[in-house]
Amino acid sequence: MATTSSGPSPASEGETQGRSGDEIVTAALVVIGDEILSGRTKDKNIGHIAERLTEVGIRLLEVRIVPDEAGRIIEAVNALRERYDYVFTTGGIGPTHDDITAPSVAEAFGVPIAIDERALAMMRAYYEGRGLELTEARKRMARIPKGAALIANEISHTPGFMLENVIVMAGVPAIMQAMLEDVLPRLKKGRPLRSLTITVMHPESEVAALLARTQDAFPDVAMGSYPFVREGRLGTNLVLRSTDEARLEAARAALSAGLTQKGLIQEPEA
Amino acid sequence: MATTSSGPSPASEGETQGRSGDEIVTAALVVIGDEILSGRTKDKNIGHIAERLTEVGIRLLEVRIVPDEAGRIIEAVNALRERYDYVFTTGGIGPTHDDITAPSVAEAFGVPIAIDERALAMMRAYYEGRGLELTEARKRMARIPKGAALIANEISHTPGFMLENVIVMAGVPAIMQAMLEDVLPRLKKGRPLRSLTITVMHPESEVAALLARTQDAFPDVAMGSYPFVREGRLGTNLVLRSTDEARLEAARAALSAGLTQKGLIQEPEA
Repeated sequence: MATTSSGPSPASEGETQGRSGDEIVTAALVVIGDEILSGRTKDKNIGHIAERLTEVGIRLLEVRIVPDEAGRIIEAVNALRERYDYVFTTGGIGPTHDDITAPSVAEAFGVPIAIDERALAMMRAYYEGRGLELTEARKRMARIPKGAALIANEISHTPGFMLENVIVMAGVPAIMQAMLEDVLPRLKKGRPLRSLTITVMHPESEVAALLARTQDAFPDVAMGSYPFVREGRLGTNLVLRSTDEARLEAARAALSAGLTQKGLIQEPEA
Repeated sequence: MATTSSGPSPASEGETQGRSGDEIVTAALVVIGDEILSGRTKDKNIGHIAERLTEVGIRLLEVRIVPDEAGRIIEAVNALRERYDYVFTTGGIGPTHDDITAPSVAEAFGVPIAIDERALAMMRAYYEGRGLELTEARKRMARIPKGAALIANEISHTPGFMLENVIVMAGVPAIMQAMLEDVLPRLKKGRPLRSLTITVMHPESEVAALLARTQDAFPDVAMGSYPFVREGRLGTNLVLRSTDEARLEAARAALSAGLTQKGLIQEPEA
């Protein structure tokens, strides 16, 4: 794995060897589903994927939700696979006529798609073990683009796949989560982004100036401000993010001191 | 409003006058937020907007989640406003340094942005009525691109805005929802898409062939199949969608008859 130094405190060589590099690894997600766009189904995958990728050191930088249309899937996959290290997709890999993700991804890469003997063997072991027939509709789910690696899952026993940097997963959350855990160990990772949150029970506008000054003093620590309404009162979560633990802690200390001085938070006693 | 006929059964002239046209009205949504992409915050706006737009007769055809970066916001807004009748945005219109949606949208349109006297008046009435100061940070929220119409909300009393076909709303769900209700009456709508769901407690693969045949017989009714896992069993929701009530009902009857014949559902007694 190539490790390129980023940020203000370059790691000593070899420090993270074999685990994760200093390189920033990026990803995008394409959610395929008319039912999400119509509001009939509420997506449960974006939040889970975002959280897991952040935890392992992959930065999710874009999500697109597109309809079950080949042209739109191909367009999104091709736009994003050039731009990010990985592109994940969810949805549209079942046995029905509206499941067009696998052939769309094959078309995006210009490779053929056919029944894959490895996929069929996975499915056969499961179905025949339960006395179920491997019907034509079920066999349709074994169509995998040429050159793809399979992604197993222990729930439906129907694989997803990874073609170059594009990772195709199911839309059903339990199955998607199993596939994600199967594929994550194969991916390169960067240094995980750490974050800290300070919650203030005051509106954003009262912390804005202090936050901006603290941001100027710590340009290498990303600072965000997220308002919320709780029991009719406006509050703000101040979130600091950095891959460098020491800088993150220094920024937190500076911001906390400023908030305490303005009477916006009470510093816990030591 | 221009009404252009679409679909297989053109409405008689004037049938929908004054309410909604036969025209298909489309929309996209840009969710602006690092916190959604990092997984720290779970989005609650996409599902709500999708549902409300579907109800009123606007089809949400794409969603993009992008980081708090001007370049990415401008790129998404410009790509989508050319393509859809409306583009909604959520997030990034607060008082802090990371709130860059308003100037980014101004830049996307190439128009200037400045403190808007109408917005300031709205905010002043609220803040001064509560003995609060209209600080510089708060005034920052009154910056509105030139030529935009304001979108009121009764929670934060800080407006969103609509510039041509781009509708800029807050990210806090309660505030966003208030803004959405304020702006919806101003938008053109198409005939609402109706949907019907048939739930089958069998895996998708067992209904795939029948569903494909029914789809062929009703090319004007969109049919989707959405698998789920409930108490360890695989089930499938079959969803039919059309703007034409009669065709929708005919497709439902045909599909129900087929499912009953195959023993996959029990037809309720008349």
